[in-house]
Amino acid sequence: MSDSVKVALVGCGFFARNHLFSWKDLAAEGADLVAVCDIDAAKAEAAAKEFNVPRWYTDFDAMVEAEQIDLLDIATRMDTHRMLVEKAIGRGIATIVQKPFAPTWEDAVAMTAAAEKAGVFLAVHENFRFQTPLIRVAETLRTGVIGTPSWGRISFRTGYDIYAGQPYFFDEERFIILDLGVHTLDIARVFMGEVERVYCETQQRNPKVKAEDTATVMLKHVSGAVSVVDFTYESRKEPDPFPETMVEIEGPDGAVVVDAGLTMQVTSGGEMRTEDIGAPLLHWTSKPWHVAQESVLITCRHMLESFRAKDAAATAAADNLKTFAVVEAAYESAASGTAVKPRAYP
Amino acid sequence: MSDSVKVALVGCGFFARNHLFSWKDLAAEGADLVAVCDIDAAKAEAAAKEFNVPRWYTDFDAMVEAEQIDLLDIATRMDTHRMLVEKAIGRGIATIVQKPFAPTWEDAVAMTAAAEKAGVFLAVHENFRFQTPLIRVAETLRTGVIGTPSWGRISFRTGYDIYAGQPYFFDEERFIILDLGVHTLDIARVFMGEVERVYCETQQRNPKVKAEDTATVMLKHVSGAVSVVDFTYESRKEPDPFPETMVEIEGPDGAVVVDAGLTMQVTSGGEMRTEDIGAPLLHWTSKPWHVAQESVLITCRHMLESFRAKDAAATAAADNLKTFAVVEAAYESAASGTAVKPRAYP
Repeated sequence: MSDSVKVALVGCGFFARNHLFSWKDLAAEGADLVAVCDIDAAKAEAAAKEFNVPRWYTDFDAMVEAEQIDLLDIATRMDTHRMLVEKAIGRGIATIVQKPFAPTWEDAVAMTAAAEKAGVFLAVHENFRFQTPLIRVAETLRTGVIGTPSWGRISFRTGYDIYAGQPYFFDEERFIILDLGVHTLDIARVFMGEVERVYCETQQRNPKVKAEDTATVMLKHVSGAVSVVDFTYESRKEPDPFPETMVEIEGPDGAVVVDAGLTMQVTSGGEMRTEDIGAPLLHWTSKPWHVAQESVLITCRHMLESFRAKDAAATAAADNLKTFAVVEAAYESAASGTAVKPRAYP
Repeated sequence: MSDSVKVALVGCGFFARNHLFSWKDLAAEGADLVAVCDIDAAKAEAAAKEFNVPRWYTDFDAMVEAEQIDLLDIATRMDTHRMLVEKAIGRGIATIVQKPFAPTWEDAVAMTAAAEKAGVFLAVHENFRFQTPLIRVAETLRTGVIGTPSWGRISFRTGYDIYAGQPYFFDEERFIILDLGVHTLDIARVFMGEVERVYCETQQRNPKVKAEDTATVMLKHVSGAVSVVDFTYESRKEPDPFPETMVEIEGPDGAVVVDAGLTMQVTSGGEMRTEDIGAPLLHWTSKPWHVAQESVLITCRHMLESFRAKDAAATAAADNLKTFAVVEAAYESAASGTAVKPRAYP
């Protein structure tokens, strides 16, 4: 295909399987997965074999030297993001980086500035806003059926054992706000607009977890709207809605509610209708993960299309910094007991 | 009946009908409603006729002078509470006063101190914790099936036209936190324990209402638990759950959830069971108000029994001051943008 886009993936761990399936699915749309890389040779080789990728590497520098990469997908853990992004941007390679963007605000700003200075595409693989149910909520809000949102709750409460797949979660210095809150705080921005101030209470409910495993965040939005964004990995409620995000949005003319079970209740003008907003099962997705898995495909497709169109992605670095600023403000608020205004990108 | 308790009611307005029905129902348990009083003679006379009360008054002083009152029930608006309570306490009359206890912290403290000094029974008719569904939640939590509560949400969101019955709500200086939040913040204390600090965002969504009609409160409890207590009269969601309170409480071993429809879902040890927690319909109650109406009867019964037993009521003045302190802290927080520690009764 003449307009094929050569994609390389670095990081072949737990979640990267979803990226691998997605890029292979996107072959029909011109994505050409030419190489994978992991510091663990066994993982890189296994990924290349299973997904029929021509070449695999353990050395990132060797890969970017040898390959003609159009679009680099970084799915490593966040402590390596800045180093990898700066190398890629230095070579002018358009880059996608998994969330969380970085461990610190300073790293996230440095990457954003480097990409802007170089005029190179840089986007964060923030996938919650690309989940089919949440896309449907955003579309519904944009039609104006409830008016401008004035109050909301975005809630993700589960007891699903996320430590089984990612045991390093026990030892993070900053945990659930950065890992999970970064998604749902992004959703709050999508649904309710930019954030004026942030208040947050954190809790460490699981004694085995070093950092916060529960956070309750209150946002005052620039519009005057207020939202609660609450999340925990320590809920013990059955049925457990993992990995679904519960939503309540109120406006002057109605409300949108998403409860467990992937249906959306839309009230407008005093009448309520229910819509199925479930994600389809793909050949490589399975319940209960399918909503999250499918969002990786939709996110990768958005990246491919944005890159081709020479547009910034919806979750471009500069946009994701705004979500990252809310994350930082939540940590600052929890530490200080005061509301915190999110930092602006300098 | 030899141990009958002579009850008098002052205030025969909108909500007082529920008190009148309750005291008449409690005749079988020894309550003897001997007099009613309202500054509006038509209201006082109508109440006396309809409820077969021997005497009615328009002058409070005349009533307390003429009657031998054991238990005075004050169901007037809050600006008159202190004046009436101080007169009653001055005469040694055991007194119940409708919520909100008072317009200000200073008034509430003054009444509490006066009653303590005089050694006279003084309690607040705070009825949410006496609603059958919420009694059932509290009982369930006390059994320990979910462990010590670590996170909660107490939510009351409605679009029910409460202004129709109480049009003075449009012009209150302080509105929904004092009117409605005082109930649900009290429930948060009952379910989750005393409050260490309070953060609150208020909104005025209905342009006809002078003060806040929506508040979102976050509580950090002394136990370390966190709760969200949110309430509005501007929700436009169907079906409207008015006047039900939605509850989510999580503990280390399970969760209790009350959604619209008066059922409680209790998860414990990984198993979930559902219980009907609806209130019975009484001969004088009707849906959707019946849950709130029945709670007046249960509250009055508790007052009668506490008075007879010479016990402080569960919602004695000193207890209700703790809820009032949370209300005040919420207003202070909303004005200052910082978390506020509730005042202690001096």
